[in-house]
Amino acid sequence: MSNEAPFTPEVKAAIQLVRADVARLHAELVRYGLVVWTGGNVSGRVPGADLFVIKPSGVSYDDLAPENMILCDLDGNVIPGSEGSDRSPSSDTAAHAYVYRNMPEVGGVVHTHSTYAVAWAARGEEIPCVITAMADEFGGPIPVGPFAIIGDDSIGRGIVDTLTGHRSRAVLMQNHGPFTIGVDAKDAVKAAVMVEDVARTVHHAREAGPLIPIPQEAIDALFDRYQNVYGQNSDARR
Amino acid sequence: MSNEAPFTPEVKAAIQLVRADVARLHAELVRYGLVVWTGGNVSGRVPGADLFVIKPSGVSYDDLAPENMILCDLDGNVIPGSEGSDRSPSSDTAAHAYVYRNMPEVGGVVHTHSTYAVAWAARGEEIPCVITAMADEFGGPIPVGPFAIIGDDSIGRGIVDTLTGHRSRAVLMQNHGPFTIGVDAKDAVKAAVMVEDVARTVHHAREAGPLIPIPQEAIDALFDRYQNVYGQNSDARR
Amino acid sequence: MSNEAPFTPEVKAAIQLVRADVARLHAELVRYGLVVWTGGNVSGRVPGADLFVIKPSGVSYDDLAPENMILCDLDGNVIPGSEGSDRSPSSDTAAHAYVYRNMPEVGGVVHTHSTYAVAWAARGEEIPCVITAMADEFGGPIPVGPFAIIGDDSIGRGIVDTLTGHRSRAVLMQNHGPFTIGVDAKDAVKAAVMVEDVARTVHHAREAGPLIPIPQEAIDALFDRYQNVYGQNSDARR
Amino acid sequence: MSNEAPFTPEVKAAIQLVRADVARLHAELVRYGLVVWTGGNVSGRVPGADLFVIKPSGVSYDDLAPENMILCDLDGNVIPGSEGSDRSPSSDTAAHAYVYRNMPEVGGVVHTHSTYAVAWAARGEEIPCVITAMADEFGGPIPVGPFAIIGDDSIGRGIVDTLTGHRSRAVLMQNHGPFTIGVDAKDAVKAAVMVEDVARTVHHAREAGPLIPIPQEAIDALFDRYQNVYGQNSDARR
Repeated sequence: MSNEAPFTPEVKAAIQLVRADVARLHAELVRYGLVVWTGGNVSGRVPGADLFVIKPSGVSYDDLAPENMILCDLDGNVIPGSEGSDRSPSSDTAAHAYVYRNMPEVGGVVHTHSTYAVAWAARGEEIPCVITAMADEFGGPIPVGPFAIIGDDSIGRGIVDTLTGHRSRAVLMQNHGPFTIGVDAKDAVKAAVMVEDVARTVHHAREAGPLIPIPQEAIDALFDRYQNVYGQNSDARR
Repeated sequence: MSNEAPFTPEVKAAIQLVRADVARLHAELVRYGLVVWTGGNVSGRVPGADLFVIKPSGVSYDDLAPENMILCDLDGNVIPGSEGSDRSPSSDTAAHAYVYRNMPEVGGVVHTHSTYAVAWAARGEEIPCVITAMADEFGGPIPVGPFAIIGDDSIGRGIVDTLTGHRSRAVLMQNHGPFTIGVDAKDAVKAAVMVEDVARTVHHAREAGPLIPIPQEAIDALFDRYQNVYGQNSDARR
Repeated sequence: MSNEAPFTPEVKAAIQLVRADVARLHAELVRYGLVVWTGGNVSGRVPGADLFVIKPSGVSYDDLAPENMILCDLDGNVIPGSEGSDRSPSSDTAAHAYVYRNMPEVGGVVHTHSTYAVAWAARGEEIPCVITAMADEFGGPIPVGPFAIIGDDSIGRGIVDTLTGHRSRAVLMQNHGPFTIGVDAKDAVKAAVMVEDVARTVHHAREAGPLIPIPQEAIDALFDRYQNVYGQNSDARR
Repeated sequence: MSNEAPFTPEVKAAIQLVRADVARLHAELVRYGLVVWTGGNVSGRVPGADLFVIKPSGVSYDDLAPENMILCDLDGNVIPGSEGSDRSPSSDTAAHAYVYRNMPEVGGVVHTHSTYAVAWAARGEEIPCVITAMADEFGGPIPVGPFAIIGDDSIGRGIVDTLTGHRSRAVLMQNHGPFTIGVDAKDAVKAAVMVEDVARTVHHAREAGPLIPIPQEAIDALFDRYQNVYGQNSDARR
C-alpha cells in the first residue's frame, strides 16, 4: 500500500475526476429524497486502477467535497496518505469493495435507505414489473437479496450473487434496503433514483387493486430498446 | 426538409417563442415532482407552421435551455441544421408528432411518469370524478388508453383515439403513464400537474372508504363554467 | 361604489397593510404544498372598513404582489378604479364575501384543494379528533359542509352554517375541499396549514388500525389552554 | 435566580454555543418536513451549568436566531434579564426541563408532530424493529409513552419513565407525538429525523403485507456496532 504520490499522472487525473463526480452525485440522493441525515453512500471506480472513491462515514451532505471523498483499494482499505484519509470511509465500504472485486464491469455502487424500496425489502418481496419505465430501466422485477448484516463480506456477496446475470442493476437487501450498480457512479445513482420511483409507484398501484401484468415479450422489447437507443449516445446509461 | 434559414421571419420568431416556452415549462414538471432524472417531456406546436419543439432525449432538467430544444416537423423528424439538431429528440417524439398531425386543435403535449397517475395506469383504471376541481378541469373521469409500446404509432394512436371527442385532456396510457394535451404547451403542462393532483387525491380518498359521487348535472355545470369564465381572459386555459 | 381615492387616509393605510399581508401569505400555501398551479386563495378583511382584499383569478403564485391583489366590498364587487381592479378576483370571491358579511368576527378566509383534506371531503367524512395538536387548534373534529357548487351563495352559506358556533375554524366542503377562517388572514392560513397536517396524519393513522380516542375533558382542556396561553401574546391566533 | 451577568466566562461562552446550535438545528426540522408553522421545538443543555436553551413559543422558523433562543433553569423558569427573556419559551418547556432534571446524561431534547410518528402514536402502537437502520439507531422497537396533557409534569414523567433504561432515545407519546433525547441537541435532532423516517418506512412496509422480523441477536449486534464504530469518532451520536 502506498500514498497518492506514486500513482501515474493518468491515474492521478482519473482519481480527481472520480472524486469530483462522487462528491457531486451525492447531491442527487438529497434532491430526490433518498437519504436523511448522513445515511446513504455513492462510490465510483477509478478507471485504469484497482481503486475506488467513496463517501466518508457520518459526514453531513452539506459538507461533502471532492477533497474529503476517500480513496480505497479493492479490499476496501483506505490508501494511506491520500487526500481525506484522516477520516473513516462509509461503514458500507466493505460491501462496495466486494462488488468492485467481483464484478469488473461495475464502475459505480450506490446504497440508500429510500422509503419505499426499504418497505419492499422489509417484506422480502421483489417489485413486479408492471410499468413500462421499469421494463426500460430494469428489464423485469427488482430482486431481493439475502438478509445479511454488516461486519464481513455477507452483504457484498449477497449483492453480487443476486445481480450477477440479472438484468436489474438494483437489489433490495432483505430488511435493509437497495444497493444499485452501474457502469459508473452516475449510472448507479440513476438506478437508485429509479428504484425508489418504481418502488413507490408500484406500492401505491397495488394498494388499490390488482395490477395488469406486462407481457414478457413487451418487457424484453422495451429493455432492449432502452439499453441501445435512449439518450444522446449509444450507451444509454451514461 | 430544410434548415432553419428558409423559414419566414414570422415563423422564425414563433419558433423562438415556443423554444423559450417549452424550455421554461419543463421546470414546472420538476417543481411539482412529476418527473425524476431525465424522464418526462413537454412539446409545443409552432403557430402558423407544421412544426413543433420538444425536449432532447436524456438531458438533465438542469441543462434545458431554448437553444437545446429540438425543432421537428409533424412526422417527428428533426429539422436538419436547426439549433439543437445535433442531439436526439425525446424518445416519445413519435407520439407527440402523431397527436399534432391528427389533432389540429392541440398546441401542446406533455408526458410524465408521475407517481399516482402511473399507479392508476398500472391497474388500467380510470379516475372517477369525485372532486369539483376535477369536474372543473377535466369535465369527468380521466380515461385509460390502450397498452402500447414505443416503436411505431401505437402510443400516438392510443392517445388520439382516447381523447378525440372526450372532455378530458389527459389520458392514462395503460401500464405506462399520463399524456396530456392543451391549446398550447402551458395548458398541457397545467393538465399534467392537475392529473397527478387528482390522481393522488382520489387515490387517498378511496383508500379510506366509499366516495360520494358528484351528480352529472353538477359536473356539467362546473366544466362549462370553468372553460368559459375562470382566469383573466375568455380562454380559461391560457 | 367608489374608487380608492375617497377612502380616508386611515382606511387607505389599512388597505395597503392587508394587500401586503394577503400577497405574502399566499407563499405559505406554496411552502406547505397546499396548492398547485393557480389554485387556492387567501383573503383578508380591511379593519375599519367594509372591504376585503383577495387574490386575482388564475394568476401564478410567482407573480402575486400587493399591487395585484384585488379590493372588494362585502358583496364581492371589485372596487372600481382601485389598484389591480383591471383583473378578475378569485372565482371563490362570492364565498369569501358571504363569510365576511355574515361572520363579523372573521378577518381572514382561506381556500385550498390540499390533498388529504380533499380526500376526507370526497367521502363526506369529518376528521375525528385523535391527536392533541388537533384538540389544541380546532377543539374537536373538523366538520363537513354541504355539497354546493359555485355560482350563487350556496358555498358561502354552507361555510357559515357549518362554522357558526363551532370551535373548528376549518370546514371540509363535501367533494370540494377545505375553507378556513381566522381572526385575520394569517390566522386563517395557519388553520389551512394545520387542517391539511391533521387530515394527513389521521388518514395514515387510521389506515393501520383502530385509533385511540382522546377523552372529551382532555380535548376541552387542551383547546382552552391553547386559545389563551400559547404564543407570544394573549391572542394565540395572531 | 439571576440575570446572565453573574455567570462565569466559561458558562457564558457555553451558553452562546448552545444558543447557536439550538437556533441552527431547528432548520433541520424544517428541512426534513417534521414541523409545520411554529410547531416543534429543540432544546440543548448548557454543559457545566444547570441551564438549558429552548425555542421561544409561537415564533416562525424563519425568525429563529441565537439571540431569541430562551435560557431556562432546570425547573423551566426563564432566566430573568437573559437575552430573549422578554419572550415566552416553548409551551413544552416543562417537559424538556423534567427530562434534564431526571436524566443527567441527556444533553438535548426534541419534540415534533411529524406525520408518521404521530400516526403510530394515535394508535398507541410501538414501531416494530424490522429494518436494520432502526436496529442501528434505536436498538429495537420505538416505545409508546402514556397519554398525558400539558399543564403539569405528566408529559416529562412519561418520557423519562419510558426511556429510562431503554435503548431507544425516541418515545411516541400516545395521541401526541414523538419526543427524542440525545447526548446533545444535534443527537436528539438526529433521533427525531430517524424516528420519522422509520415510522414512515415501517408504516408503508406493513400496508402491503407481513413483515419479516429481524432476529434479536442481529438487532443486538447492529446496535452495538453502531454505537461504537459509526462516524468519525468514538461517539457515534455526535
